[in-house]
Amino acid sequence: MTELRRRLVEFARARGWQPYHTPKNLAAALSVEASELVEIFQWLTPEESARVMDDPDRAHRVRDEVADVLAYLLQFCAVLDIDPLTALAAKIDRNEKRFPVPEAGPVTDSPT
Amino acid sequence: MTELRRRLVEFARARGWQPYHTPKNLAAALSVEASELVEIFQWLTPEESARVMDDPDRAHRVRDEVADVLAYLLQFCAVLDIDPLTALAAKIDRNEKRFPVPEAGPVTDSPT
Amino acid sequence: MTELRRRLVEFARARGWQPYHTPKNLAAALSVEASELVEIFQWLTPEESARVMDDPDRAHRVRDEVADVLAYLLQFCAVLDIDPLTALAAKIDRNEKRFPVPEAGPVTDSPT
Amino acid sequence: MTELRRRLVEFARARGWQPYHTPKNLAAALSVEASELVEIFQWLTPEESARVMDDPDRAHRVRDEVADVLAYLLQFCAVLDIDPLTALAAKIDRNEKRFPVPEAGPVTDSPT
Repeated sequence: MTELRRRLVEFARARGWQPYHTPKNLAAALSVEASELVEIFQWLTPEESARVMDDPDRAHRVRDEVADVLAYLLQFCAVLDIDPLTALAAKIDRNEKRFPVPEAGPVTDSPT
Repeated sequence: MTELRRRLVEFARARGWQPYHTPKNLAAALSVEASELVEIFQWLTPEESARVMDDPDRAHRVRDEVADVLAYLLQFCAVLDIDPLTALAAKIDRNEKRFPVPEAGPVTDSPT
Repeated sequence: MTELRRRLVEFARARGWQPYHTPKNLAAALSVEASELVEIFQWLTPEESARVMDDPDRAHRVRDEVADVLAYLLQFCAVLDIDPLTALAAKIDRNEKRFPVPEAGPVTDSPT
Repeated sequence: MTELRRRLVEFARARGWQPYHTPKNLAAALSVEASELVEIFQWLTPEESARVMDDPDRAHRVRDEVADVLAYLLQFCAVLDIDPLTALAAKIDRNEKRFPVPEAGPVTDSPT
């Protein structure tokens, strides 16, 4: 991930795009790409959504949007000097305390 | 990242949340978290957005939303068996051909 | 709708909020509110989503988010001098030509 | 607005699209269209965003996305039997109490 982040930062620098890459703009771009991922699924049933990778064209589109989301997330983190893996590890630690596993085993209460 | 992905999958399994974690629902949850990141910036000027980490409370909130976005992205990739780093590397390769660096050096054309 | 739009514009003016109400910021705020509507539905099955108004608290939350989306849409249109009803009528006219009704009656092809 | 809502409902009915128009799917579609509006503005400065209607092509695109957002909002309200104007009027009433106008006249505190 560090190497991909370096390539993304260099990619933007070489094209003179840094002035556009404010945290505000990158957060908006991230949300736009996340919505493009939602768009692929918007009319699918839950069952159809589980089989989305069976169609090669759609599978390519899904991977492409995943890449876009991750790209903007890494660029956002780069401009604000955030380590997303450290942030996520801390969040999982907090959530493991906040949502203890029920002693009787898995339940099916809705996630938050 | 592999270890965090494993922890997230185990977290959902232990709580019986897999039935909720369809690709369609996880894509929606990802976009909701991305919007919560946008919300932090929505009334800020570009300059204020660049200083968002100066305030400890806001910095915590930004890191927390980054963690949520990454968590849902990894869970989405887990249920569809997508490797996000491979997807991103392929995308950067394509973009380096699609947007060649101008010979005269960086320009400031708007990114796409 | 004209009267509500007038009240919204006056509400923002009286509180000195116009400097924040750039088209860019209002579009972001609109998308944030739309995501808050999505959040209500994110873990529901299609069937549960159809019964969302049966619970008074959830029904109130849905109406509240609908109001927020419409509020930012009207404010966005106000600052750019767009008539949303005229824009929608024109769009429906175009779509009626683009998606002709099949002669054999309703089909169930996925909407776009 | 009542007439446009009637046309939208009839448009979907004539094409057999009602099975896709669950509240959950329509909320997602609404958020996707709102993000397409954000996309137009994502790399613009606040000043550029204020002049977005000067370019005829971009002005058309903005009006088109406004129409899409309003279309899905009205369809969402139709399937759940919500009156969006009543919901908005109630919200403005609440907000007028929640954010009283400062006696000294307009201030420039950030909106919520």
